[in-house]
Amino acid sequence: MSGTCDMRCVLVSKSLDLRGYLGPEFVHAADRIEIVSHPHDGPAMDVRLAVAWHPPDDAFEHYPNLQAVCSIGAGVDNILACPSLRPDVDVIRVVDPAQAQMMSGFVAWHVIGHQRRFATYQAQQREQRWKRLGLDVRRAQDVPVGILGFGEIGRRVATDLASLGFPVMAWSRTAKPAPHGIRAFDGAAGLDAMLGQTEILVNLLPLTPETRGILNRRTFGRMYRGGYLIQVGRGEHLVEADLLAALENGQLSGAALDVFSTEPLAPRHPFWCHPRILVTPHEACEVSVAAIGTTFRATVEAIRAGQRPPLTIDRTRGY
Amino acid sequence: MSGTCDMRCVLVSKSLDLRGYLGPEFVHAADRIEIVSHPHDGPAMDVRLAVAWHPPDDAFEHYPNLQAVCSIGAGVDNILACPSLRPDVDVIRVVDPAQAQMMSGFVAWHVIGHQRRFATYQAQQREQRWKRLGLDVRRAQDVPVGILGFGEIGRRVATDLASLGFPVMAWSRTAKPAPHGIRAFDGAAGLDAMLGQTEILVNLLPLTPETRGILNRRTFGRMYRGGYLIQVGRGEHLVEADLLAALENGQLSGAALDVFSTEPLAPRHPFWCHPRILVTPHEACEVSVAAIGTTFRATVEAIRAGQRPPLTIDRTRGY
Repeated sequence: MSGTCDMRCVLVSKSLDLRGYLGPEFVHAADRIEIVSHPHDGPAMDVRLAVAWHPPDDAFEHYPNLQAVCSIGAGVDNILACPSLRPDVDVIRVVDPAQAQMMSGFVAWHVIGHQRRFATYQAQQREQRWKRLGLDVRRAQDVPVGILGFGEIGRRVATDLASLGFPVMAWSRTAKPAPHGIRAFDGAAGLDAMLGQTEILVNLLPLTPETRGILNRRTFGRMYRGGYLIQVGRGEHLVEADLLAALENGQLSGAALDVFSTEPLAPRHPFWCHPRILVTPHEACEVSVAAIGTTFRATVEAIRAGQRPPLTIDRTRGY
Repeated sequence: MSGTCDMRCVLVSKSLDLRGYLGPEFVHAADRIEIVSHPHDGPAMDVRLAVAWHPPDDAFEHYPNLQAVCSIGAGVDNILACPSLRPDVDVIRVVDPAQAQMMSGFVAWHVIGHQRRFATYQAQQREQRWKRLGLDVRRAQDVPVGILGFGEIGRRVATDLASLGFPVMAWSRTAKPAPHGIRAFDGAAGLDAMLGQTEILVNLLPLTPETRGILNRRTFGRMYRGGYLIQVGRGEHLVEADLLAALENGQLSGAALDVFSTEPLAPRHPFWCHPRILVTPHEACEVSVAAIGTTFRATVEAIRAGQRPPLTIDRTRGY
């Protein structure tokens, strides 16, 4: 380690060139920290910190003194799934208010698109047909939205949809206080209660063993008939066959999917050309490099002070 | 006039069956008022009030004691254009908070659609192509929106877009106070100043001799290159050839049009199959029959009390 540095940080990813992604500013702003890339030839004992995204299975075996792993996104499931991650290592997520705003706009577009039937207008234009929907034009107040996940992002999405006039409900695993105008639900019974009043379901949940496959036949079956799914969580939340069946039998009238269990979405996957599915390439929102830098610096300061980094997740619940 | 009635109101429209449109509830709720339809066989002297939408040119000649004409929409240009409307007759528009909310959601869908390039995603899906926009994904804060018209509806649209994170400017003929976070412009110089900082232009103006043709080559030319037009005012605001030219030369990257100088939009009109124009059938927002009823009753009360109806427009400025 060079003279003025007191910490070494390793960049670990099998899917991304993290050095390029984070850019020179990030690397230089890391005060008194030597940044190396995995696999790393130098002494591994000094590596106390990692920045990771989809780490290789054996990556963390090489760093016996690793104290903390920083994610570059809000979701940390890709890090927790790494078999070589020891239970005592802190995993740190990023919070970025601008990310919540990006997500909120993305979700609002799909919510309004369903409410105002823009797909119908687009189809009519292709047929050069002037046809007013008349009484089928619906007001926001008549289209209830249920949100799965009520953290920083869920709260922002809920608040923005409420100010656009939609009745908004939000569910979380454990009870959370709700801002004015949002109805909060929690626990298993709360989930069923919310689904029973939901036309548009927005999935913002973290991926955990409990939430894997939560978007399934039973969930869709409890929603309003003709409901709509906005899936911006993780691909593994969705049971794909159940979605196709729900669209087929009319339980759902459409779905917007931004995340998939295999990305890129495979060629010839039935989602691509389904007339009632909108596919986007996992781009609903992204954490800014600036926000990653802020979280990283707060983590470093906490480690230097012998404290727990502020955005450390709870390993037992998985987020 | 039947015994208990003190006023006769005539329904006047060449394009709409107003009695059917307003429904039996409206007719019955009109307290001590006899509702008749134009052309009207009975004594015309007793007709002091009209509800009108696109009245025939000679309609108002028949009613020498007409005091007030109620519109069924926020725009009254179709009534002011009637040659038989005497200058001393009060023209009353409808204000409906739910209408402002409908318009706001409609506009937000188009604004976010441009910002997040959903048309590109839709094209990629048709080609079954997974391609992330990456650095081309733009944040709301980088897409300034200019709004033409800053009345009840413009204010609502501006406020909602601002809370979605867009920099919002709004222009009106005369200076108006702006809510927090909105930059207000007025007058001819203000218009140019706003256009010079505008990427997305939203037209919510009333149609008056001054605003006819305001969406023209000069206006588009002052906006950011690659700008976007959301036209939800009146068809006559737009110089159609100038829009097509601006799309052709890249000054504008797209347009959403809900209103047209001839409606329904003519078969084979170039707008129908233009790849960068979205056509909707004049349905961005609609005044509810309940709101028409509320305005109507307030108008009747004012006339009975010998006062000016509260939502009377200023005939000299045209709105």
